[in-house]
Amino acid sequence: MSGRLLGIGTGPGDPELVTLKAVRLTRTAGLVVSLAASGRPSRARRIMAPHLPTGVPEITVELDMGPDRTAVDRAYDQLALDIRAEVARGHDVAVLCEGDPLLFGTFIYLLQRLPDLPVEIVPGISSPHAAAARAAWPLATGDRAFAVLPATMGIDRLRERLARVDAAAIIKVGSHLPAVRALLGEWGLAGEALLAVQATTEAEAITPLGAYAGETAPYFSLVLTRGLGGARG
Amino acid sequence: MSGRLLGIGTGPGDPELVTLKAVRLTRTAGLVVSLAASGRPSRARRIMAPHLPTGVPEITVELDMGPDRTAVDRAYDQLALDIRAEVARGHDVAVLCEGDPLLFGTFIYLLQRLPDLPVEIVPGISSPHAAAARAAWPLATGDRAFAVLPATMGIDRLRERLARVDAAAIIKVGSHLPAVRALLGEWGLAGEALLAVQATTEAEAITPLGAYAGETAPYFSLVLTRGLGGARG
Repeated sequence: MSGRLLGIGTGPGDPELVTLKAVRLTRTAGLVVSLAASGRPSRARRIMAPHLPTGVPEITVELDMGPDRTAVDRAYDQLALDIRAEVARGHDVAVLCEGDPLLFGTFIYLLQRLPDLPVEIVPGISSPHAAAARAAWPLATGDRAFAVLPATMGIDRLRERLARVDAAAIIKVGSHLPAVRALLGEWGLAGEALLAVQATTEAEAITPLGAYAGETAPYFSLVLTRGLGGARG
Repeated sequence: MSGRLLGIGTGPGDPELVTLKAVRLTRTAGLVVSLAASGRPSRARRIMAPHLPTGVPEITVELDMGPDRTAVDRAYDQLALDIRAEVARGHDVAVLCEGDPLLFGTFIYLLQRLPDLPVEIVPGISSPHAAAARAAWPLATGDRAFAVLPATMGIDRLRERLARVDAAAIIKVGSHLPAVRALLGEWGLAGEALLAVQATTEAEAITPLGAYAGETAPYFSLVLTRGLGGARG
């Protein structure tokens, strides 16, 4: 009997926005792995906590998210070795991943290190879908284009991409908020855009972008906006 | 006590890829609404069937998906009136929506007709996430851009948009398959691209795009591909 690497999407934050399959596979795994920024609790584990049976073997790996990638790479390398050993013993290893494992998920870095293992991935609700649902904000209809654009790509690249889609979720806004707000203002889109912070969690805050006074946005926030749909640019 | 309009994302096809919240709200609704193309069973209802209690009041509305939009618009108008009446009686009305209600979902057309009703939307796993999970195909990492692009926008617009994202799910491929394949071939991307038909259902078929012999793709299929990321175009 062979074990598997399981990538479990835990969704955006609300423990009820977890799929039945995510719950079942996590409950029957031989080892549950969570990842956390060092000094902080794992967000994915917090979401799954109500669904974890007592006594399930668990490890939480802390990642030092500082500017030096070497430490993070070493942590992934070691975790990949540990997972490989556990799978070789015939156990399923469930890696808990906030949102969707394959859309900006840390799970991708494990998958790249373990391409030969049997793998099963459970998709999860990602934050753009969660924010849209909470705001009753249609993402796309008909032949429209929708994109997920990290603000970290830089404002020039963001401008170019946003000009050619009909709607977008701009993620990883953080310190890029003033530049994002200026860009959307220039195009007359700021009035309609929304800033969504931690949608579906207890810390949720969804406000019109124009009404948000801060100069930076929290890391776990995104902007829902229309794009220009190719009308310019 | 006031009723609510509930938009329930049922996910891509596997009844286990439904969220706990979707199951709970559907079970306690006073009326469950499904939409279907005329003459066919509702896909969203089939997904939720294992979770529906016996005896729950249900209606299924058939939409004539022919070239004449008038009949479809009238069907939405009538359904909106029926939902409004039921909500006014204090009942929750759960509208079942395949995938995510707000990403190319028919639910959007009901929402537009009922902007004043109390609404709760449960996000669902959309088909790009489902196909990526089944193929272990990372959608995006770091500062990359990911887009959902309907092939129905036409090949010139598709070319322009795909040139500026790093990865995309091209949906509604259908009869546009030859044009999509030619475009990706021109850019040297066809070899890596995947055609995913009805991912997570019993009819699932995921094949390299180059290995797919058909001249058209089924309606419920999509292509996962890299884009040019702004390198050209």
